[in-house]
Amino acid sequence: MILEKVNLQEKFALFTDYWHPRVAGELNGQHVKLAKLKGEFIWHQHELEDELFFVVAGELKIELRDKTVLLQPGEFIIIPRGIEHRPIAQNEVQILLFEPASTLNTGDQRSALTRDILENI
Amino acid sequence: MILEKVNLQEKFALFTDYWHPRVAGELNGQHVKLAKLKGEFIWHQHELEDELFFVVAGELKIELRDKTVLLQPGEFIIIPRGIEHRPIAQNEVQILLFEPASTLNTGDQRSALTRDILENI
Repeated sequence: MILEKVNLQEKFALFTDYWHPRVAGELNGQHVKLAKLKGEFIWHQHELEDELFFVVAGELKIELRDKTVLLQPGEFIIIPRGIEHRPIAQNEVQILLFEPASTLNTGDQRSALTRDILENI
Repeated sequence: MILEKVNLQEKFALFTDYWHPRVAGELNGQHVKLAKLKGEFIWHQHELEDELFFVVAGELKIELRDKTVLLQPGEFIIIPRGIEHRPIAQNEVQILLFEPASTLNTGDQRSALTRDILENI
């Protein structure tokens, strides 16, 4: 467990690829992840994990089966386990995720976007 | 579990008192808390809980026994369980906390600052 502070902008400057979350912190079995998103993700759900999306920069649309939520910087949403969702970013978005360390990015789906191994950043 | 987004600035506008965390979200047994800080807190530790401090606005000093960390907006630190710490805010600071729902704000200490009951916001 590090005892150094983490500056989000410094971390986001270290990578450019999309849909590839990095682990910026770990606590109580939970991960703090940072990711850049652009384009459409796939519909998926997490069987066992609630997932928090916090937008740092840009605008993130999260499609749910019954509505769509638009997140601006400084806004977050918690997607409870079992709820299908699909993130969409028309332009680049920087997000912070807070979720159990066990969380797979594509949840119950496997695709070219699935990231089985996560690096620390 | 709510399925509405949370706007941090809207939530911070709802209260003015210091050292009184509100619960803005819950996931996986963890709380997302919002608090305004000003002045010096007390030295304490959390026996069982790691605690994340994320600064939204203002500047937060966190004293540890062997060093002091200064957090600016967009920066966070994770204080592992068992590590004594003391938050100090010379001017008002807005922070977001991620920590287990069981976390008591003053940890192993009791004082006039102890908040046994937390409201949702």
